[in-house]
Formats: sequence, structure tokens, C-alpha cells
Amino acid sequence: MHLKLTIAYDGTRFGGWQIQPNADTVQERIEGALAEIAKEKIRLHGSGRTDAGVHALGQVANFDAPNHLTMNPFNWVPALNSKLPPEIRIMECEEVPDEFHARFSARSKTYIYRLCLSPILPPFLSKRAWHLPRQLNPVDLGKALSFYQGSHDFRAFAANRGNETEETDYVREITRADFEQIDEGYLITFTGNGFLYKMVRLLTGGAVQAAQGYLRQDDLYDLVNSPTGKKSPLCAPPDGLTLLSVEY
Amino acid sequence: MHLKLTIAYDGTRFGGWQIQPNADTVQERIEGALAEIAKEKIRLHGSGRTDAGVHALGQVANFDAPNHLTMNPFNWVPALNSKLPPEIRIMECEEVPDEFHARFSARSKTYIYRLCLSPILPPFLSKRAWHLPRQLNPVDLGKALSFYQGSHDFRAFAANRGNETEETDYVREITRADFEQIDEGYLITFTGNGFLYKMVRLLTGGAVQAAQGYLRQDDLYDLVNSPTGKKSPLCAPPDGLTLLSVEY
Repeated sequence: MHLKLTIAYDGTRFGGWQIQPNADTVQERIEGALAEIAKEKIRLHGSGRTDAGVHALGQVANFDAPNHLTMNPFNWVPALNSKLPPEIRIMECEEVPDEFHARFSARSKTYIYRLCLSPILPPFLSKRAWHLPRQLNPVDLGKALSFYQGSHDFRAFAANRGNETEETDYVREITRADFEQIDEGYLITFTGNGFLYKMVRLLTGGAVQAAQGYLRQDDLYDLVNSPTGKKSPLCAPPDGLTLLSVEY
Repeated sequence: MHLKLTIAYDGTRFGGWQIQPNADTVQERIEGALAEIAKEKIRLHGSGRTDAGVHALGQVANFDAPNHLTMNPFNWVPALNSKLPPEIRIMECEEVPDEFHARFSARSKTYIYRLCLSPILPPFLSKRAWHLPRQLNPVDLGKALSFYQGSHDFRAFAANRGNETEETDYVREITRADFEQIDEGYLITFTGNGFLYKMVRLLTGGAVQAAQGYLRQDDLYDLVNSPTGKKSPLCAPPDGLTLLSVEY
């Protein structure tokens, strides 16, 4: 049976989503729980990586339940949660068509980024927001975010992974980039058909620098519209970032 | 100079407020930071203990700054925060009259208790709410809380500390005991002129049991109004409890 999981996690103490040596990762934890239940190795395919310290409310992954298991999809939720730490919760499990793939079937993803502007970062937002006690102009923040909307070559907002070639395609379409005021600061929302490595954090870093007056709006505009190899001046910390949902 | 601190903390990884052997406590951390700044031992007087795992948004404490230090009160805030872990934050520091004492001058305290009724406890509420996935009747919750209002002998809602005598005074006045609906469940608020050991958690446990049908409303009423030595049937976990403020 081909199954889709919706997963929430507090990324603070994990080395990101993807299995890697010498790191405690979310994917490894869930694959471990799957193997305990199925008594065999099961491969879990996520919609994409999240970096160390990044959170999720709606990460999506798929796997194939072995034929010998006759569990209903919804029974996987408590079965997996009972074997996972409280920082990782399976929120939903549903049967999907065979051709469904968490990564390749995704139409878009939505991320939120939380900025705390209070002079003192409240303990409850520690590791859950970017603390920016300095002035930040909300009109300039909105203007900066508007530059990102639409289809652009986002090479200025991609960290190198080391496997880039001349053919690497940096064009992505962002359909939403805006913010709302929340109690302690601002919540930025990005929706796009795909995001490059560290792109949301580099977009956030650039917009914040423009809103704080450390980067000219024209220079940010050029990074989006006339990429030359120059990078966004700042990568926002992982703390404030949450993968909200993946749309199919 | 006689100074008053307002303190917020995420109690998850601390052994409560009060200094004790073999525990990492909030009071000890702040006294450590004070000693680093003042180069001498400074005693910090809190408004009262909070148990291991209990949180605070507005704990209050006082101390005397040594005469050789000529710091402005507001400069203690960044000085202390720079020496404290992010889970403990000094939110305010102000000069108060010599007769001010965080504990003895307090007129009342306000606590909030967070209940999560979602089938699955979201990772962000782990250690910050009491997870109650079973049915809970809000009308019965409100009725149970209303029993607590007023002056009563609350011996049924006091855990033993071992130093109780026949003269121990269990009478306290509760001026507010109600709840509001929040996204994932309910937020209970208690204000009173004083609280006995574990009283808020025993009040919450009793009200929840009545709202879930495990305790008859009449029996809860009797625990409040005709104490016989019988105790509240349930002590709510520390996770959901936060000391919101101390009123002077």
C-alpha cells in the first residue's frame, strides 16, 4: 500500500530532515520507527530537505507499506507516534495512488519565517524566531518581498551545494511573498513551485537587510532581476523557519 | 540599591525555581549571574517557588545591589541576560522601596494552565501543555472552576510538604478561576491571594476530572466546601502551567 505521511517537527535538536552520517535526523527517526513496526527496512521519501534547526508543521513523505501488514492507513499514526520522540509527530497518514511521490508530485511549498522585534527574546521563542531587536521598516520589508514575486533566476539566493554546473537551473516561481504583523514582530510567508538550497533563508536575510537600511532596495532588486553571481548579503538563521505545507 | 526583577523562563529543563542540591534551578542560575557581575554573593528573593517543569512569564524577585556598583537599574537587564541561558530572560529591572519584598509584598498571583485537546499533541506544545485527547465538557469545566472562586479551606488541593501542623492555615482566596477557548484547547486562568503547594495543579486536575466525567460535580464541590482530609483526585502535570504575573 502506497502511503502519504504529514509530519510536524520541532527541528531544534535535529540535524535536519535528511539522513546523514553523525547526525540525528528526522528521516532517520521515522525510518527507524517504520522498521520497528514492519520488521524490515522501509525507505521514506520526503518532499525535500529541511536544514538543521528548521521546523515543520506540514512536511510530507511517502513510503510503501509491505504487503504482509494489513494495517489501516490511520492506524499508522498512533503506531509511529508511540515510537517517536514528542518533537516529531505524524499528523496524518492516507493512502495515495501509486504514482504519488512526495517530492516529484509537489506543485508548491509554503514556508513561514518568524521575526521577533521585541528588545528581549522571550524564552518561549528561543530557537523559534529570529531575534532582531534593531529597527526594521515594515514598508521597506513589504517592498523587498514584492521583488521576489514571479519567475526569476534566483542564483543570488542559492547557497552552493558543490554539485552546481553551468546547466543548473536557478529559475523558480514565487507566487506569494508577504508578511503580517504578529504579537512580537512579523511573520513572512513564501509560496513557490520550488526552492533552491537555503533559498528561503537567503530571501529573508536580503529582505531584512533592505528593511533595516543595510542594503539598498535597488541593490536587492538587481540581485533578483540581474543576477551576476553576487549573493544575498545575509542568510537568516534556521530558528525562525518552518515548512508550513506542501501542495499537490 | 533595592531592585525588583521580572523574569520569564521556560521551565522544561530546570529543577524548578528554588535552589536545591543536585538540581539545575532558575534561582541558582540568576544568583550565579549576579555574583559574576557583582564579584560577590548576592541573595535573590523570589515571590515563591515554581516546581520542576513549570514555566513563568512574570516571576518576580528582589535583591540588593552592592553599593560599589553604580549601574542604572535598566542596565542590569542586558548584563544579566548576557550571562543566562536563552531559556531564562530578565524582562525588567526597576528600583523599589526598601520595604519591598517579592514574596511578602505580593497581593496576588496569576497562573495560566494550558490544555491541548487535539488528538495529537503538536511538537511545539510538547512540555508546554497538558495533552487531553479525551472528551472534555466545557460547560462542566466552567462550573467546576466556579466552585473555586472565593475564600475556602483548600486543604484538599494542597500536596504535603511534610512540615504541616494542626495550625497550618489552608484558607486562601481565589478571585479568578475561569477559562477561554484557544486554538488547540482551553486556557485556564487562576488569580488568588496565595497558593498552597501544588495547589494550581490540584485545582486543575480536579476541574478536568469533573469536566471529563470521572469526578462528580457534587464531590468536587464538597472537596472545596467541606474538606475532610480527602485530596483532589488528580495533580495536573507541570508542563501546562505558567506563572503569568505577581501583583503588588
